[in-house]
Order: sequence, then C-alpha cells, then structure tokens
Amino acid sequence: MPELRTDWLTGRSVIVAENRAQRPNEFAIGPASGGVHTGNSAVTCPFCAGNEHLTPPSVYEQSGGDGRWQIRVVPNKYPALAHDGTSASTTVCQRSLWADSSGATGAHEVIVESPNHVDRMSALSVEELRKVLEAYAARLSHWQQHGRFKYGLLFKNQGAAAGASLVHVHSQLVALTEAPPPVQREQIRAQTAVHKSGRCPYCQLIDLERSAGERVVIEGNGFIAFCPFASLQPFEAWVMPSDHRAAFEQSAGEGTMPALAGVLQAVVRKVESQLPTAAYNWWIRTAPWHVNDDRSSHWRLELLPRVSPLAGLELAAGVHINPLSPEEAARRLREA
Amino acid sequence: MPELRTDWLTGRSVIVAENRAQRPNEFAIGPASGGVHTGNSAVTCPFCAGNEHLTPPSVYEQSGGDGRWQIRVVPNKYPALAHDGTSASTTVCQRSLWADSSGATGAHEVIVESPNHVDRMSALSVEELRKVLEAYAARLSHWQQHGRFKYGLLFKNQGAAAGASLVHVHSQLVALTEAPPPVQREQIRAQTAVHKSGRCPYCQLIDLERSAGERVVIEGNGFIAFCPFASLQPFEAWVMPSDHRAAFEQSAGEGTMPALAGVLQAVVRKVESQLPTAAYNWWIRTAPWHVNDDRSSHWRLELLPRVSPLAGLELAAGVHINPLSPEEAARRLREA
Repeated sequence: MPELRTDWLTGRSVIVAENRAQRPNEFAIGPASGGVHTGNSAVTCPFCAGNEHLTPPSVYEQSGGDGRWQIRVVPNKYPALAHDGTSASTTVCQRSLWADSSGATGAHEVIVESPNHVDRMSALSVEELRKVLEAYAARLSHWQQHGRFKYGLLFKNQGAAAGASLVHVHSQLVALTEAPPPVQREQIRAQTAVHKSGRCPYCQLIDLERSAGERVVIEGNGFIAFCPFASLQPFEAWVMPSDHRAAFEQSAGEGTMPALAGVLQAVVRKVESQLPTAAYNWWIRTAPWHVNDDRSSHWRLELLPRVSPLAGLELAAGVHINPLSPEEAARRLREA
Repeated sequence: MPELRTDWLTGRSVIVAENRAQRPNEFAIGPASGGVHTGNSAVTCPFCAGNEHLTPPSVYEQSGGDGRWQIRVVPNKYPALAHDGTSASTTVCQRSLWADSSGATGAHEVIVESPNHVDRMSALSVEELRKVLEAYAARLSHWQQHGRFKYGLLFKNQGAAAGASLVHVHSQLVALTEAPPPVQREQIRAQTAVHKSGRCPYCQLIDLERSAGERVVIEGNGFIAFCPFASLQPFEAWVMPSDHRAAFEQSAGEGTMPALAGVLQAVVRKVESQLPTAAYNWWIRTAPWHVNDDRSSHWRLELLPRVSPLAGLELAAGVHINPLSPEEAARRLREA
C-alpha cells in the first residue's frame, strides 16, 4: 500500500511505493539518453491490442473506425495512489516536527493512446489525437464528479529521460485529495490578480503575448501556442484556449477538441522537428475542483522537452538554467 | 550576459544563459544512462593538471604533498550568473503580470577536486576529501564576506543524469543576491519551530532519528548520516553535525573537517556500493548570510542519487515517488 510522507520542515511530499519497483521497464537495458526508443523486446508491451490481459480491465474505451478500441483507460497496475488509502499512520517519532505518514489516497489511471505500438505522439492523426483529448476530459470529469477528490492531474512521460518506463504512447491521470502545492500557490496569486484587476490574469497574459508576438508559435481556431517568458527548457510550449475557459473538461464539453487536436499536433510536430529524439513531458493545468471563482483559472497544456537533466541548482534552489531564449525557440518553431 | 527571468504568476525563476550552450559536453556522444563515464576523448579535459590554460585563472588553490595544486577553484567559464548583472531590463509587456527580466547577478565558480582525471568521489582519500571540504568552506566564507550576496549554494553534479557535462570530479558554487525560495520557505518554518519550542528543530530531528535508529546510516566523530524520512529517491542520505552548528563555514573554522571527510567518504562508498553506476547530486544547505538567529539554521549536506528521472508528477505537482523506503535504504547502507 503506497504511503504518503509529508515533511513540514522541508515541505516535501513523497509517495513511498515499493510496489512500483516491480514495474516492467523497457528502458532498463541499453538505454539511450532522452530519445525515442524502439523498446526492449524482452518486455511484451501490455498496451498493444491483443495484450489486454496484461493490464487490469479497462474503465473507459473509445472505439476506432473498425469497431475495436482506439483509446483505452485502465487503472495503473503499479499505483502510486490507492482508493482505500484511509488509515493515517503518523510516525510517532516525527510528530513533534509535523512529519506525517498516511496511506496515499487517490486514483491512478493510464490512458493508452493507440492500439498500435506507436512510440511518438506526432505519429497520431488529428482524429486520433482528438480521441485522446476527449478521453482526458472524460476521465477528469469522472473523478471530479466522484466527489472525493480536489484535483485531477493529467500528465504524459514521453521517453526515458522524462520518466517513462514503456515506449507505447500513453498518459497518466492522478486524482488527488488536495490540489498540489504549486497549483495552490499559483491559484492564490491568480486570485490576487483578479482582485486587483477584475480580470483573469491568464487572459491578460494571452493579450500581452499576442501583442508582443515574439514568443507566439501558432494561433488559430480558438487556441494559442507560445513559448512562455520564463521557459524552463529549450522549446517549452504552452497551449491555451484564446478565450477564457477555466477548466479543460469545460472546453471539451463545448466541442473544441477537434480544433485543439489540430493545434496540438502542429506543436508536437514542430517540437519533434527541432528535437527529433528528445524526451518530453506534457501536463494539463486545469482548474482545481473546489474553486468556485472561474475567473482565477484558465487551463493550459504545458509541453516541457527534457533537453538537459535537472541539476543541483535546479533541485536545491529551484533556479532553472535555459540555454535558449524562448524568443529564439519560438522563432525556430514558427519556421519549422 | 545571462538574464534572470522571474514570473510572479507561476513562481518561476529561470536564468536564460545562451552562453552556456557552448559548454563542452563529454556526455553528448554515446552516453550511458546515469553512469560513471570514462569521458569522450574528443574533449580535452580542462580540469586535469597541465590543462590550466583551458580555464580562467584560479582564484583559490590548495597544494598537495608534492607542492603542486590539489584543489583549484576557477570562475565558471560559462557562468549562469555575472558579477556585473546590474541593469534591470523589465520587459514592458509583462509588467502588469509582474514578470521581470534583469541581469542574473551573482558569482559562479567551479571547484576542481583533484588534479587527476578521477571520475568518482569514492576514489579520493579522506585527506583529499578534507581539502575539498576546506575549499568549499573557504569559498563560501569569501563570498559571505564580500557583502553583496545573501546566500551561497555549493552543489555537485556527478554523472550525466545529474546534470554534469564533464566527468572529472568537480563541484560548483553560486553566490546569490537572495536566498532561493525553497531555502526561504524552510527558514520561515524553522523560525516558527524555534518560536514554539525554543530549540533548533534540526537538533530535535537528530534526536528523533537517533532514538528511532531505523534510518541512521552512521554516527560518530560529531556527525550523523541518515536517510531522511521523506527521501526523494532511493539511498538519499543527509550528513549533519550532531551538535548544533548553523553554518557550514563555522564548522570548518572549528577544525571538524577531518571528521566530516571520514564520514562523507564512508557514506559515498556505501551509496556507490549500492548504486555502482548511479549519478548523484550533493549540495550543502548552510545558513542564509542575512539571518542573525543561529537557532533556526543547522547545516546539512544532502546526497541525492538520481536513480529515476523526475517525471510529470514530480515536475507538475511537486509530488515525488520513491520505490524504496528510507528505512530499507538505511538498512542496506548500514550493512554495505
């Protein structure tokens, strides 16, 4: 049973999940750094059509043109969070320092994004990508309506350097009992901005990026993609709805996923053209489920290439070093 | 000139340093993952004795038994921070969102830890390690006395997966105009703890770890090494002075470096015995230079193996997953 340890003094949150040491890892033998891999043939891919018995039963499917599944969502076989993580088991010796241990409560699902052994998102058609995005939205909505959780994080680890253990395209969803600290901190700042200006700060940011122009990669069909002013890595790109939309699930309900799939495919192909073998993460920052003021949230998808490993300065001080300005990155992505 | 970009809404701090794209990288061709490397022979090692002309002139040296240098500190040839980073150049279009750009002001030095092409710290003798630690303390003291800076971060990137670009053993020091946000947040919590209990919370932590015992790796000669309760990765280990010492530089002045070198060598050898090819970082959390209350600081050296890459959950939510409990890690390290 995974255990959540939080340490008040250092501010750390760690899930100790010894069950995850048993995960199959296609990158464990003969890895290349940060690249797209063809996989280790010693591991039978549990995400390929025909191997459904290697995963828990699906909780959601979308069918393809041929009537077989195109997208498949399954509970994570090696979860970092458990539904029944209820029993608090605070370590007594740590209590006076406010360090706690409890069952890590939550949901942890895998979104299998193709029935075929595809290893990169740029290989998916716009139509296939639309189904991926609709699956994201459906599962986020499911866990929001479940009522027990306060935040849903949808994230992708693509390539070994981004934390993937399998090459077959997939993403993950965790439903959490609290919004994570970075999300909470940003929410407070966004609420402060709304209080001052009466307007969503992300809408302001989009206006400013649009008028500056130099960091914009694409805009159209209701979405804008740009390299953020404080990009953490070369070619980091954010995709946001141009008009105000607090929650990703809400956008999906309004029929905008086909347009988003087109913009996202273009961005992914541009990034992969600049970094053909790069690993990357993407995640969706959607509105926390317990916040009522829609003006202080405006969802975004962050695509973060993992060009250089996070080093001591990043980990110890939270200061990132980026050897490529986002203005130059955006220029190259526009031209790609 | 490196540029510091801070973004109020997301809380990001990024140094855009295009000069760093020119760094030689011994790991750029044919890297193995997270391992100790023999280096890329296409790169002449600038840290080996005889190649001093490949670095800026040294600002500090310690001599070895033969009268030649044993430890050599040089300004970083590809600095992320510059002494003369004075001119604030706030990007106007971002001002209403409180995002700033200014010259990244600070010092950035490299501590070359051996004249020989040694690729792992466990190869150094206790005597050699003592000189390394004394060099750390001397440079931290130098920048503290300089007066312009508020925090000194001493960190090591060992191996490609930990962010190193050269294999020859070395560490880095940055002097910063502000304590970094994670250090500030921990300081506030430590001060709160002192206010409540009248006592250094780190001294309390050491008492608790000592009485629990299960996470302790070694204790003796005035130092304790243990796997922290909320370890981020397998075999993470902290080394702390058993008695209260706020600043690392202070400990050095009290002649404790020989004892520390012995404990640190033992810890490094134990960790390397469990993870023979692992990359790791270490860094020293010493007292911020502008804090007067010595009771709320107690320095530590954190050694963080980089066993698995930080993935989407870590980066987006700040939640780490550790597949090995620190109790089991400490047990294996004690027996190693």
